[in-house]
Amino acid sequence: MKNEIFINNEPAKSESEIISYLNNQFISYGFRNFSLDELASRFQISKKTIYKRFETKEEIIRTVITQQLSDAYSNFILAIQSRITIVEMFVELSKIIEKYYSVFNEASLKNLERYFPQLAIYIEQFRTNRIIPLVKILLKLGRKKQLILDIPDDIVIRVFNSALSEIVQSKSKIESQQSYEVLFRQAFNLLLNGILTKKGKQILINKTKGIK
Amino acid sequence: MKNEIFINNEPAKSESEIISYLNNQFISYGFRNFSLDELASRFQISKKTIYKRFETKEEIIRTVITQQLSDAYSNFILAIQSRITIVEMFVELSKIIEKYYSVFNEASLKNLERYFPQLAIYIEQFRTNRIIPLVKILLKLGRKKQLILDIPDDIVIRVFNSALSEIVQSKSKIESQQSYEVLFRQAFNLLLNGILTKKGKQILINKTKGIK
Repeated sequence: MKNEIFINNEPAKSESEIISYLNNQFISYGFRNFSLDELASRFQISKKTIYKRFETKEEIIRTVITQQLSDAYSNFILAIQSRITIVEMFVELSKIIEKYYSVFNEASLKNLERYFPQLAIYIEQFRTNRIIPLVKILLKLGRKKQLILDIPDDIVIRVFNSALSEIVQSKSKIESQQSYEVLFRQAFNLLLNGILTKKGKQILINKTKGIK
Repeated sequence: MKNEIFINNEPAKSESEIISYLNNQFISYGFRNFSLDELASRFQISKKTIYKRFETKEEIIRTVITQQLSDAYSNFILAIQSRITIVEMFVELSKIIEKYYSVFNEASLKNLERYFPQLAIYIEQFRTNRIIPLVKILLKLGRKKQLILDIPDDIVIRVFNSALSEIVQSKSKIESQQSYEVLFRQAFNLLLNGILTKKGKQILINKTKGIK
């Protein structure tokens, strides 16, 4: 009867718990499909309770993922608005990417596309129409200040994307979250360093000295 | 009867033509399986003629691929032996990688593994036992001369490998060989720049100024 009490008293709690649970799951492992039975049993509630809150499984996933997109985007905007150099901005950016890249990398999106193509299209459009243009603005600004080399945006984005995707996909093979973070940061710094001019590199050195 | 004349008079020629044809094919598109019927018809010879020269299809492919490995390796050694700086050595290396990466990248090797697992293992071992140690020696030398940053070898190799694989795999979508070469070089330079110190970067700038 414990389940019943839980269902009757705390539907709102179980709703936010489900969202928060899936949020952590996706951030840790990328998107993975699941059954509502699994979800119900994990939270010791009935599927009926889930359906009181969400019309479909897709709605649950959409809630989690749009929230993540919006969080990543607003963190990104915050970083841009803060009064730091372009190079420092990219370092800030790396933290956002590190956090959300498990969900928004190629492998995770491909998986999502298999089960919820509409959602995958939505993310792809968000990325194309909102994230990529922002990255391009940063690159342009960086070039104007002679901190970033004159390499075509397309190449920069593809090289970063493929290399970081590879690191993210190896996450499950890495012992600890901590060593994954170190690995990600080292790969990101290599890539960032790769687009910097001598002047930009000097700023990166000064910046990362503080971190170490 | 033309075929018969060809077969009788120039078996040696057709042998080297087959090898050279497959060599170009693999260099252009990576390893792709083919039937002996296709090959015989392309060279207007009988399968019997092919079997006079090669015991199996695997032997043909092995001949092509071991030749490529040995060419790539000796070019690599030549570059190392020439009296140039480590940074210039990496630029030389990029030309070798650009040429042979179509054959020896992940996607091509996976394809090879499906049909000829023994050959794929041979290449993998060659890469692990002979190519990677050489790359590590270069990285170590570069670090000793303070031209290359102190990033773990494993990360350097993984980032280069995943990013360049992505570029190679997009080759078929690119209009011309020339624009592919430009793309590859830009991506390689980004990555190379990413592992260089300020001092190393200065040498790269001077070196690539000459190229442009």
